[in-house]
Amino acid sequence: MTAPLGFRAAGVTAGLKASGKPDLALVVNDGPLTAAAGVFTSNRVFAAPVRWCREVVADGALSAVVLNSGGANACTGAAGYADTVATAERLAEALDIDPQRVAVASTGLIGERLPMQLLLPGVTAAVAGLGADGADGGADAAVAIMTTDSVPKTAQVSVGGFTVGGMAKGAGMLAPGLATMLVVLTTDAVAEPADLDAALRAATRVSFDRLDSDGAMSTNDTVLLLASGASAVTPESAALTTAVTRVCQDLARQLMADAEGATKEIAIEVRHAGSEDAAVAVGRSVARNNLVKTAFFGQDPNWGRILAAVGTVPEDVAAFDADAIDVAINGVWICRGGATGEDRGLVDLSGRAVSVTIDLHAGTETATVYTNDLSHAYVHENSAYST
Amino acid sequence: MTAPLGFRAAGVTAGLKASGKPDLALVVNDGPLTAAAGVFTSNRVFAAPVRWCREVVADGALSAVVLNSGGANACTGAAGYADTVATAERLAEALDIDPQRVAVASTGLIGERLPMQLLLPGVTAAVAGLGADGADGGADAAVAIMTTDSVPKTAQVSVGGFTVGGMAKGAGMLAPGLATMLVVLTTDAVAEPADLDAALRAATRVSFDRLDSDGAMSTNDTVLLLASGASAVTPESAALTTAVTRVCQDLARQLMADAEGATKEIAIEVRHAGSEDAAVAVGRSVARNNLVKTAFFGQDPNWGRILAAVGTVPEDVAAFDADAIDVAINGVWICRGGATGEDRGLVDLSGRAVSVTIDLHAGTETATVYTNDLSHAYVHENSAYST
Repeated sequence: MTAPLGFRAAGVTAGLKASGKPDLALVVNDGPLTAAAGVFTSNRVFAAPVRWCREVVADGALSAVVLNSGGANACTGAAGYADTVATAERLAEALDIDPQRVAVASTGLIGERLPMQLLLPGVTAAVAGLGADGADGGADAAVAIMTTDSVPKTAQVSVGGFTVGGMAKGAGMLAPGLATMLVVLTTDAVAEPADLDAALRAATRVSFDRLDSDGAMSTNDTVLLLASGASAVTPESAALTTAVTRVCQDLARQLMADAEGATKEIAIEVRHAGSEDAAVAVGRSVARNNLVKTAFFGQDPNWGRILAAVGTVPEDVAAFDADAIDVAINGVWICRGGATGEDRGLVDLSGRAVSVTIDLHAGTETATVYTNDLSHAYVHENSAYST
Repeated sequence: MTAPLGFRAAGVTAGLKASGKPDLALVVNDGPLTAAAGVFTSNRVFAAPVRWCREVVADGALSAVVLNSGGANACTGAAGYADTVATAERLAEALDIDPQRVAVASTGLIGERLPMQLLLPGVTAAVAGLGADGADGGADAAVAIMTTDSVPKTAQVSVGGFTVGGMAKGAGMLAPGLATMLVVLTTDAVAEPADLDAALRAATRVSFDRLDSDGAMSTNDTVLLLASGASAVTPESAALTTAVTRVCQDLARQLMADAEGATKEIAIEVRHAGSEDAAVAVGRSVARNNLVKTAFFGQDPNWGRILAAVGTVPEDVAAFDADAIDVAINGVWICRGGATGEDRGLVDLSGRAVSVTIDLHAGTETATVYTNDLSHAYVHENSAYST
């Protein structure tokens, strides 16, 4: 995230987590530009920092982001929103910038107030710890936003004289319209806010929006893209979009690989759909089906459950003839024309990577949705989270 | 199911199950009427017997139902459909009736042909074993349709001189637009097929359609209602609907209580919605959320996850202000106005029954959706089912 020129970052321990692990991160854009864009959860129940971010990113300018991992600050009412504003104001004061240039992101338990007596001094400490341009504050920040993540997640792409970097957290509640996650992307490209917004929406549509780990949409999902312009390179829109997409896809893969309790990483490719949206809808329906997910945990190539999941997609969403569908698991076409195909004994599900291919024979469009299996560890981790 | 006058039933072991347990059931309507109605899965991938039933019930007349529990006969192509027709023809021949008067229902694994060399002799044996009117063939039939069910499920209501009885199987894959289940309902009331159809649709809408154990919709769901007219009582439509609804609700409760691996039976009541459909949509969204379901398994009154699930319902489906929502768990209002309410420590989740009340403050309508928790046993049972 500090690979692009013009960015500094920090990660510190403010004391929000009982574990004593790092819990507060900063990203600062030193410019010369302050262009920015953001996309957020589509959940109608959204956290105070999401409300704040939507307001401050509306004018396409951000100079800094402060993220905390010790609490979601969601469902905390007016008092919670005031906590977010106070956080932005504290960072703005320390950096001598306008609070409207400061984005705030939070993750953790829903429904509890943040311990502001710890968080605000943490902001001050993080500012003091900001690394120099190019120093490894970026790595510290990536660690400080982790919750149930087992590893920090960063990515970068350099192409045509500019760089895009990013960090992400998220390990569960990964779902459509964004996974439960916080992502900060940085670039030293020269770009207008409108270009950043277009690149970010195009990138998230084919990366984070295609993750569906457990069908649960978060209250806090936030993806921000900040441009410093420090490379002095102005890429074509397509080149910017491609670079941002590559970083988002890299981070999305890391999120899926680290999903809570998963033993399988499952890519569901839907071929020959009438539209890309139809392909995504079919893929998502399979990705969300608990009977499919438990079957993969049991290393059972249960194509009947896959077909049954496909069949729940309404006709006005995806046209297909159920008797024409082929399904392959790890390359073996065990379902042909909606009925038994090759021998299921040929399917090897012993590895972590699983590919499911669903051929609808109903058009020309293709899309891939990513999910995980449903395991004992998922149940354990999510039944014990807040107690 | 044989409590209403005019019905005989049987349950036998045809040898379809490796376990050697009973696997083939018959219900015969001796009249004088042969009026009938049916509702079926809305899954676009549906089993051969569902296709057959839709055809033969279209004229509102059935004289017998044959059900097998050793295989779903779904995703089996034209050959599987021929197996269903052959099953109906065998029973019709033995009873000397028109095959078009015979409904067929199947449950078990998807994607495998039925062993017809065992099933057809089983039909003949079951006919030979048909009990006399009022004998306990009904109990045998209820056992013979079980799959992963731990107990047989029957219910009956007698009111105003007529009786409605029924049997059901289902213990997982319980989902909207019908749970995965086979249900046969019988009545000795005098009724036209149109009245039966109206009563059945009204009854299933507020019973089986309100179950959502694991969000997975089956390929085989079938609910049939047969009227013999043997009581010579012609009830008002409302009285018939009420009696059928009571039997369906009783059976639905039994299905939920026997859901695979469940440790909790969760009733989600949504109050003050703009419409009944909106209330159901909100309840179903909560019922299907794996993070909510694992929290209940962990006896964690995690209202934040409930609110986040409510927030995923689109605005055009259910109008509400997220900041106005109250949530109670087992009577404790732990969320008020979208934020923390009473002390979560007051919620006792040690019992099997859980009530969730969600007050949207957005209208006058109420609906209740029923679900289960997501447990280690669910993962175990469904990851090992076909292997």
